[in-house]
Amino acid sequence: MKINIPESDKKRVVIVGGGFGGFKLAQMLARSKVFQIVLIDKNNYHQFQPLFYQVAMGGLEPSSIVFPLRKAFQKRRDVYIRVTEVSSVDTVNRHLVTPLGICNYDILVLALGANTNFYGNEKLAELSIPMKSVSEALFLRNKILSDYEKALSTTDYDKRQGLMDIVIVGGGPTGVEVAGALAEMKDFILPKDYPELNCEEIDIYLIQSAEQLLKGMSEKASLRALEFLTELGVKVKLNTRVADFDGEYVHMNDGTAIRSRKVIWAAGITANQIKGIPAEAITFGNRLKVNRINQVEGLGEVFAIGDMAYMEEEAYPKGHPQVAQVAMQQGKHLAENLLRLQKGQPTLPFHYHDLGSMATIGRNRAVVDLPHWKFQGAFAWLVWLFVHLFQILGVKNKLFIFLNWVWNYATYDQSLRLIIRPRVPRTGEMEVEQ
Amino acid sequence: MKINIPESDKKRVVIVGGGFGGFKLAQMLARSKVFQIVLIDKNNYHQFQPLFYQVAMGGLEPSSIVFPLRKAFQKRRDVYIRVTEVSSVDTVNRHLVTPLGICNYDILVLALGANTNFYGNEKLAELSIPMKSVSEALFLRNKILSDYEKALSTTDYDKRQGLMDIVIVGGGPTGVEVAGALAEMKDFILPKDYPELNCEEIDIYLIQSAEQLLKGMSEKASLRALEFLTELGVKVKLNTRVADFDGEYVHMNDGTAIRSRKVIWAAGITANQIKGIPAEAITFGNRLKVNRINQVEGLGEVFAIGDMAYMEEEAYPKGHPQVAQVAMQQGKHLAENLLRLQKGQPTLPFHYHDLGSMATIGRNRAVVDLPHWKFQGAFAWLVWLFVHLFQILGVKNKLFIFLNWVWNYATYDQSLRLIIRPRVPRTGEMEVEQ
Repeated sequence: MKINIPESDKKRVVIVGGGFGGFKLAQMLARSKVFQIVLIDKNNYHQFQPLFYQVAMGGLEPSSIVFPLRKAFQKRRDVYIRVTEVSSVDTVNRHLVTPLGICNYDILVLALGANTNFYGNEKLAELSIPMKSVSEALFLRNKILSDYEKALSTTDYDKRQGLMDIVIVGGGPTGVEVAGALAEMKDFILPKDYPELNCEEIDIYLIQSAEQLLKGMSEKASLRALEFLTELGVKVKLNTRVADFDGEYVHMNDGTAIRSRKVIWAAGITANQIKGIPAEAITFGNRLKVNRINQVEGLGEVFAIGDMAYMEEEAYPKGHPQVAQVAMQQGKHLAENLLRLQKGQPTLPFHYHDLGSMATIGRNRAVVDLPHWKFQGAFAWLVWLFVHLFQILGVKNKLFIFLNWVWNYATYDQSLRLIIRPRVPRTGEMEVEQ
Repeated sequence: MKINIPESDKKRVVIVGGGFGGFKLAQMLARSKVFQIVLIDKNNYHQFQPLFYQVAMGGLEPSSIVFPLRKAFQKRRDVYIRVTEVSSVDTVNRHLVTPLGICNYDILVLALGANTNFYGNEKLAELSIPMKSVSEALFLRNKILSDYEKALSTTDYDKRQGLMDIVIVGGGPTGVEVAGALAEMKDFILPKDYPELNCEEIDIYLIQSAEQLLKGMSEKASLRALEFLTELGVKVKLNTRVADFDGEYVHMNDGTAIRSRKVIWAAGITANQIKGIPAEAITFGNRLKVNRINQVEGLGEVFAIGDMAYMEEEAYPKGHPQVAQVAMQQGKHLAENLLRLQKGQPTLPFHYHDLGSMATIGRNRAVVDLPHWKFQGAFAWLVWLFVHLFQILGVKNKLFIFLNWVWNYATYDQSLRLIIRPRVPRTGEMEVEQ
C-alpha cells in the first residue's frame, strides 16, 4: 500500500523528524517552493527541549513549549505532514516503510534526534525517569507530586524519605537545571503545600561521573554552577557513577547507596536508529557518518542532520556536540545545499558557528558562555530568559511563557501542581496507533 | 490501619469531593477555624466543569480551569487534604474506609457529584466519549485530532466520513456548547490545518430526545440556540434517541443510522455512589434523600450536598436541578448550619436562589436567562464570558483564560491542537494507586 500523498512534478524531499533540525529544514525548503516536502513525526508538534525541565517542575504547561506542526505549515501547499513512526528505510528502492504505507522519496533527510542512553543497564532503563519528551516531563511532574501525596500516608521514616528524596543523574545542563529547580521547589513551594511533612528533610542529589559539572562549558561556569547548587542545598557528588537502581535504593560505584524511589536520568544520549541503514554508515553513539553536506556515507540521496549526524570538521575532529544549535544550523545549511544541487550549483561545506551555551540554576542564578564573554549570576539569568524566550516558536507561546515567568518570579510559586491523569483509552479506542 | 491524620480537640468534619459543593463548604469551614477538616478527592485539584468543552476543543489548557486543592488551603492549618478514593462508609462506627486507611469522622459530608449516565447501555458506556472530567475532555481532544490525522490516510470514502463526522448526544448546555464549538472548528481551523481533506464534508450532529434544546431554560433560549446551531451548520435532530452504537454506526430509535466513530455522550448524569449508605436513603438517579439542612435520611451525622443530594423544597417539589449553583449554595449553607449546630443554635432550612442559566453556542452567540431578563446574541455572549471568568478560581487562571479568549477571538484559532500522549507508566511505576 502506498501512502496517501499525491505524486507531484516536483522532487519529493522526505524529512523524518520535526525537531530543531528537521523543522528548520522544512521551513527553509517550504519557503523556496522547489520541492514537494513530506514531514514525518510521531507527534503532531515540534518540541522545545530546553524547557522540558520547567514542564516537569510545574512552571510551564506543555502547550507553551510545543508548536503544532500543521499550524506552522498552514500556508504551505507543498508540505505534507504525517503523524506516524517509520518502520524502516529501503535505500535501494528509495522508500520508507510506515504504518500508513510505503512513502517513496527522491531525497531523504533523517532528523530523528537522540534518545536517553542507559548504557545497557536494563533496570535503570525500566525504573529511572528520562526527560527527552514533554510526555516524559509530564510523567515526572505527576510522579514527584504523587510521591509527596504518598509520603503523607507513610509512617515508616525510611520509606517516607525514599518517597521524598530525589536523585538526579548527569551533570549536564538538564541535570543542573532540574536539580536547581527542585531545590527551589523544596524551599518555596513544598513547605506551603505539605505543612504535614518536614520538608527540611528532603534531599536532592546530583550525581556526576566527571570531576566537574557542565563539561562542555568553561571552567568558570562549571565552578559557579557547583557553587549555586551548593547554596541551594543540592548534594552534588562528582566523580561518582550510578551503578544500579532497584526501585528503592540507588547504588553508586563507590559502594554508597541512597534510598530514593525517584531517579531522574539525564546522563547521556544515543542517536535514534532507523532500520535499513547499512552498518558501515553507523558509528559510535549510533550516529550516522556524514560528509560536509550531511550526506550519509555511501548513500547518495540520504542525508542526516542534528544529533543523529556525525560530521568531522577541522575545528571538531571528533564531531559536533549534540545540541540544538548544530541541528538548526545543519537544517538551514542543508536546505541551501539541496537548492544548489537542484540548480546544478556546487554545494558548500558546513561550518558550525558556536554561539555559546548557557544553563540556569535558579532565581537570578545562571551561567553563560559566549564566544568572547563568560559571565554568571543575575545578569546571566536574565540573558538566559530572553534568549530562550526569543527562540521559542510562536508569539502566543512567547507571551504565555513570559507571563508565567513573571508570575512565578513574583509569587515564588509554580502553580501547575496538578496530577492530571489521562483517561485510559478503552477497548477499540487506542488513539495512539494509526 | 488508621489514616495518618493527627487527632485533634476539634470535631472532625470529613468532606468527600472537592467539586463546587465540597470546595465551597471546605472554604467556609476553614475560615471559621472551629473544626478539623479532612478534604478527600481522587484528584489533587478542583475542576471547573462549565469549561470542559473548551479544553476538549483545544481552546484552553486543563491547568487554566482547575485549581490545586493544596494551594487553595495553603494557609489553613486545620485542613488535611488526601488524594484518594473512598472504598466505603461505615455509618455505625462513623468512619470511611480508604486505601490510605480508616478515616473516622464526627461529621461526614458527601459531595461526590455525578457521573455520566449511559442508562444501562454497556456498548455506549464503552464506546462513546463522556465529558465529566478534564481527563475525559483531553481524551476527546486527542481523539478528534488523531481521527483527522487518520482520515488523511484513509482512501475509502465512507470510512473517511466515519472518521470526520461527529455525533453529540444530549441537547443540554454541554451538548449545545460542544456542537457549536465543533462547528466553528470546522469552519475556521480544520480547512487551514487539513487542506488535503474536504472539510465541507464534515457533518456535526446533535441528537436530542426532547422536542427542544436546553430544556431547563426559557422557550426563547431554546429556539435561539437551535437557530444559532443551524446557522453554524450543525444538524440538530430533535425528538430522537440514540438506540445503539457499535463503534462505526450510530443507530437512532427512528431506524436511521449515522456512520461515525465518535459519539460524544452528554445525555444525562447519575449521582456517584458510595458503599455503605442504607438503601432507604437512595432515590432515583442514585441521589441521596436529604432534609432541608442536607442531612441524609436516617443518618444523623451524614450530610450530602450538590448533585448527590435530593431535597424537596416548596418551589422544587421534585428536587433541585443538578447544577453548580445548587451545589455551591448548599455548601455555603451547610457550613453555616454546622457552625450553628456547634454553637447549639437552631439550624436554618435551605432555599435555592436561582440566579439564572446560560449557554454559549459560538462567537457572539449565547443565550442567557436571568430571573427577570432573558436575552440572546452578542451581548449574551459577553455576559457569558464575564460570568465564567468571574467564577473561575484564581487570579492567574482568570488572566490566562482571558488572554486565551482574546487571542482565540482575534485569530479565529484555538491553538492547542496538540496530541500529547501520556508516557505509559512502566512496571512498578503506577503512580495512580496509592
